[in-house]
Amino acid sequence: MAEHSSFSLRGDALIGQIMFSILDEATRIEKSGERVYHLELGDPKYPPPKELIDATIAALAARSVGYCSSYGLPRLREAIVTHLLSTHGPVSVNHVMVSPANMLISQTLDVICNPGDRAVVFTPAFPTYFAASRYIGLDLKEVPLSPSDRFHVTRETVDQCMALSPKVVIVNSGNNPTGAVYSKDVLDYLVRQCERSNAWVISDETYAKLSYTGAYHSLINSGYDRAVVISSLSKILSIPGYRIGYVVADPRLVDKLALSTSTLYSCLPPFTQSGAIRGVEMIGHWVKSICAYYQELIGHCVDRINTSSSVCCDTPESAFYLFVDIRKTRMTDMEFARRLLASSRTTVTPGVAFGYPGYVRLAVCGDEQEVMEGVKRLVAFSNNCLDNR
Amino acid sequence: MAEHSSFSLRGDALIGQIMFSILDEATRIEKSGERVYHLELGDPKYPPPKELIDATIAALAARSVGYCSSYGLPRLREAIVTHLLSTHGPVSVNHVMVSPANMLISQTLDVICNPGDRAVVFTPAFPTYFAASRYIGLDLKEVPLSPSDRFHVTRETVDQCMALSPKVVIVNSGNNPTGAVYSKDVLDYLVRQCERSNAWVISDETYAKLSYTGAYHSLINSGYDRAVVISSLSKILSIPGYRIGYVVADPRLVDKLALSTSTLYSCLPPFTQSGAIRGVEMIGHWVKSICAYYQELIGHCVDRINTSSSVCCDTPESAFYLFVDIRKTRMTDMEFARRLLASSRTTVTPGVAFGYPGYVRLAVCGDEQEVMEGVKRLVAFSNNCLDNR
Repeated sequence: MAEHSSFSLRGDALIGQIMFSILDEATRIEKSGERVYHLELGDPKYPPPKELIDATIAALAARSVGYCSSYGLPRLREAIVTHLLSTHGPVSVNHVMVSPANMLISQTLDVICNPGDRAVVFTPAFPTYFAASRYIGLDLKEVPLSPSDRFHVTRETVDQCMALSPKVVIVNSGNNPTGAVYSKDVLDYLVRQCERSNAWVISDETYAKLSYTGAYHSLINSGYDRAVVISSLSKILSIPGYRIGYVVADPRLVDKLALSTSTLYSCLPPFTQSGAIRGVEMIGHWVKSICAYYQELIGHCVDRINTSSSVCCDTPESAFYLFVDIRKTRMTDMEFARRLLASSRTTVTPGVAFGYPGYVRLAVCGDEQEVMEGVKRLVAFSNNCLDNR
Repeated sequence: MAEHSSFSLRGDALIGQIMFSILDEATRIEKSGERVYHLELGDPKYPPPKELIDATIAALAARSVGYCSSYGLPRLREAIVTHLLSTHGPVSVNHVMVSPANMLISQTLDVICNPGDRAVVFTPAFPTYFAASRYIGLDLKEVPLSPSDRFHVTRETVDQCMALSPKVVIVNSGNNPTGAVYSKDVLDYLVRQCERSNAWVISDETYAKLSYTGAYHSLINSGYDRAVVISSLSKILSIPGYRIGYVVADPRLVDKLALSTSTLYSCLPPFTQSGAIRGVEMIGHWVKSICAYYQELIGHCVDRINTSSSVCCDTPESAFYLFVDIRKTRMTDMEFARRLLASSRTTVTPGVAFGYPGYVRLAVCGDEQEVMEGVKRLVAFSNNCLDNR
């Protein structure tokens, strides 16, 4: 195995994520005994529901450690359906299967697209869309959204997207990194345009329940059988380590995805799914306290950032990320992230990881003290940079 | 999504497993309230180590539910290395990463092979090799092993394999379904032949520690940088639902596989890995009691089967499967499996699922009473078939 081309095309296409060099540097600093303030990863530290943990422990105590269905536990699928019914109208169990949401992006792209097929994303976009598309060998095109639209998809950007003749469009309302929640009008328009050209549309709705405006339009029950909704329990229930998400789609696609799971990793652990059942049953109540918590924390962070004359951000409509405009600092986002770490021991994700340079993303879902200290350091660093110019 | 070809080539290649029609029928029978004796799935019911479950619960109680490394927890990788050092000589942490063993088969094939590349398996072979190869679009060739060799790979079958000019050879000593353990001599010969032609060799060593002869030769430290060893904690520790396996390979491949994990599903749950650490630390002691248990149970099953004049099997050298010759019954293996279920409420896996018709596989790792009753029913059914001919 001497040379790079020992690997397959897919193997060579696994390039990793652009911010890893920054994370490696953070690890190096921490190993030397210094503290680093982490704002780069959406790893929520709000405690998960105790009942969820207890249900997981009970399943382990009952030795529920064998194989189970590739679709997910029937009771978990039923709990998800019951949860969805309350807000999305009729959904049946055969429209739902369980798999990590990040995995479902690759699984779905892999069973609907051949190498060379065109995928379109609106940028800024979640890094996995790039990584998965590249891995599968898709021809990925980007349609940039404008800060003047507060990074919302518009009818014009949908038209730009469709002009690229996509095989699949990936849309992410309740957006990571911008928090933008798209209107029913524009999402309906997107679905109808996809339907006209027979394109698939993957709607990543991981942050749907973390919408602070109250408004959210889902593509569940869009009436289009190539609309695929992917969601996750990781963020809403603060359990990313459980690796449980789900898809809501046409049963023929759901059956394919279950075969994909069967071929790749057989099934998810039954005891984590038992815990998730209890979590899903609680989401209705849970979402109120968690939204109140994040909304307050985000408010403090945004206020602090906008005291700066060199960086600024909008208040996100959903999720727990701030997409901070750093262009006035005259640094690239990679340079900003590197220097912020070097001088102020704070890590952020450069916008280039989302296909959108000139910005950095802050995940403000960690420990509250750490988040506020990181934001304070970022503001001081930015102002200092401007003063020293 | 009207027609089949809505899906990609990979999507279309997901055909599922051939015995699913039998499992569907078993589920239908069970729903009607009748009992079915399950001998089809390698889902061990020997209780897992209590310490492993307790360590998992402790990690959950400590809220270890966030993201972690795509390579696996550093402490789990270290525990695996310590475990391997005792029997396999020097291995370092950068040769090891953690992922479900079934997933590692697909991940490895995907990063080393392009569609159309040739893979060779020795049959009978574990069904995932077929499913994963087909999914990736490999040109899979089979080299059948002979019952007269007790299904061992021989120098002659290695030569047949290499004459097919494989890009990758998959070998599975501690074989599922036959239990065959291959000699150091033949495995060394295979590695050297692969090295001569620059072919990769994937060695699935899931059942290595369940060798009843005491002898086992691993490809760890084979001295060939394209030898990839895959193993699993599922069978040895009775925790298939944990979905934890590992690979031992050249660090450049290990890095690729970690990128694959990062792209596909980010990481495994940290709390299941915490439990696995405790499990790995215990394997040395654990293996004695579990081998004694299986060896006794297998002995009873083999004795019972060989009382029959119509079916027979060898005592396996490893694992907990019996590969039963049913050719004297004059039924195909699918027919045998279907009729055994219909008349005697017992499920087995037809040999055709392993690329080897004329046999059925019995997994005798379930509840002891259920296993013995299933075997009894199979023998009665077989004898009855012969009498009625």
